Amino acid sequence: MVACIGGGQLGRMLGLAGLPLGVCFRFLDPSAEACARDVGELLVAEYDDPRALGRLADGADVVTFEFENVPVEAAARVGAVPGRAALEQGQDRLREKELFRSLAIPTARFGSVEETGLPALVKSRRLGYDGKGQRRVDVADALGEGELAEELVAFDRELSIVGVRARSGETRFWPVGENLHRDGILRVTRAPAPGAPQSDAEAICTKIMDALDYVGVLAVELFEVGGRLLANEFAPRVHNTAHWTIDGAATSQFENHLRAILGLPLGPTELRAPSAMVNLIGSVPALEAMLELPGARVHLYGKAPRQGRKVGHLTLIDPAEDTVQRAVALADAR
Amino acid sequence: MVACIGGGQLGRMLGLAGLPLGVCFRFLDPSAEACARDVGELLVAEYDDPRALGRLADGADVVTFEFENVPVEAAARVGAVPGRAALEQGQDRLREKELFRSLAIPTARFGSVEETGLPALVKSRRLGYDGKGQRRVDVADALGEGELAEELVAFDRELSIVGVRARSGETRFWPVGENLHRDGILRVTRAPAPGAPQSDAEAICTKIMDALDYVGVLAVELFEVGGRLLANEFAPRVHNTAHWTIDGAATSQFENHLRAILGLPLGPTELRAPSAMVNLIGSVPALEAMLELPGARVHLYGKAPRQGRKVGHLTLIDPAEDTVQRAVALADAR
Repeated sequence: MVACIGGGQLGRMLGLAGLPLGVCFRFLDPSAEACARDVGELLVAEYDDPRALGRLADGADVVTFEFENVPVEAAARVGAVPGRAALEQGQDRLREKELFRSLAIPTARFGSVEETGLPALVKSRRLGYDGKGQRRVDVADALGEGELAEELVAFDRELSIVGVRARSGETRFWPVGENLHRDGILRVTRAPAPGAPQSDAEAICTKIMDALDYVGVLAVELFEVGGRLLANEFAPRVHNTAHWTIDGAATSQFENHLRAILGLPLGPTELRAPSAMVNLIGSVPALEAMLELPGARVHLYGKAPRQGRKVGHLTLIDPAEDTVQRAVALADAR
Repeated sequence: MVACIGGGQLGRMLGLAGLPLGVCFRFLDPSAEACARDVGELLVAEYDDPRALGRLADGADVVTFEFENVPVEAAARVGAVPGRAALEQGQDRLREKELFRSLAIPTARFGSVEETGLPALVKSRRLGYDGKGQRRVDVADALGEGELAEELVAFDRELSIVGVRARSGETRFWPVGENLHRDGILRVTRAPAPGAPQSDAEAICTKIMDALDYVGVLAVELFEVGGRLLANEFAPRVHNTAHWTIDGAATSQFENHLRAILGLPLGPTELRAPSAMVNLIGSVPALEAMLELPGARVHLYGKAPRQGRKVGHLTLIDPAEDTVQRAVALADAR
């Protein structure tokens, strides 16, 4: 049995990947509506509730989590995998950037506005996601408490590398994805990203995973600038930019995360088919319309629609460009 | 919400296929351990319990079943899809054979031992499965109550065609599989079956589905004799010989059954990769060993091991012959 802190769509997809392996699931989530409840037992409590954490871990082969802002002490209390180092470094943008620097991984300048130059992005060091907790500054401005400035990079495109590391230290990587955001939220990932520097990206991901003695799936968001990669941030968990692997890779990120944390052999990560992933945000289009898109695989999360909320995604197998545009239009229709 | 009479592995795999479409599930099964409980609500009661059937159907978009011996009146009471005709014809070997004859579908001789010649197979007309309720007779012998004799066919190989029919009458078919049985239980399916008469098989399946005004997935077991097909029996449900479609086809039999009964567009059935399916019967081999087979996809059903019980299957993607043999040896090891 795998216990998971958090019961959102990532937990749900872990469950869907794990049930065929004979793995059962238990989730901890403050919401009784948490959508992972469809694939396992759901404990409804705060993430740092000591009694709930005890019940969560009781009888579990391993405890994991599905979001990076899980309270570090809560995760440590139940011996969660990935371990403390990944959470501590991943939850604080300053420590994350310092990790990149210490590993000689290129990253945008960061620190005070003086260090980054203007214009800059000012971000909260903690608890930012999907573009929240960010502002652009064009004139000199003091940083607030718990804020960090980052150089505003005019990147050519945004890429991501997602890898998995076993307890043995063995690593595997999926093809690099190319990501399009809108309003700070991921809209589309294409994989493999045409002409992407796969081995450079893998080298960056390897450095981070090795430095953290990491076990499980880890994602690194990258900026490509003139053919060079800058690490932007990493997430110590399965990642939206690799959802396409359910349909387009020999083994999905969800299954390989489970294999890694359970000490099972990793599965092959090679491409089964070029894929595009389109997020469904805020509302679910008509199922019929989605299913009629050529090569479409539909993934709904069983969540109530709400503005800005990720409620599902489509994977398009070996799509024509026109099909991707139709899928985006469908996702955008209200 | 889809309600399903029966909560075994076929129900479980329907659930795993339906959850990503945003479909929820409710199952009716006499066993509190029914393995579909991991993917939906489980009502524990007899299949023909009127109150339980009422609860099962309450709020469901459609009711279906996952085994062909569901009591016809129970299925009819809740308007189950596929409908009454398929169950009535499928549950009685005599009526099944008469249907084949009426549709000019070649089948082995059947009736009394005088009609079939000797040796013959004597089968119970009802409730036989996995070779149970069968005996071979070599000398003239009167049939017992509810028995039927069938010509013993020296077939070259056993094949199966699995198709799906939508409410509109549209049909789609997966590539014909070649099946190996042992002790009356399916052990291995290879798809596509080399050199199989795909269009002949589709024609047989189409005739049956059209005659029954069928909606959902239907499987026909076939004998190939000198390049000619004889229909042996059909099953009005998802079928073990098409489990490989989860991994090896563009849309699985489970997803297309749901699409058909829910009135959604059918998905493409084309091959993604040649596949071999190996049943796990009686016991579950070590997960590590299964995962290390090249191209293996593991499907465990969460059932307690018991002699002769199907507890899972492996799909081998584009396997070398040696890999299939290794998988069979692994499945056989005790």
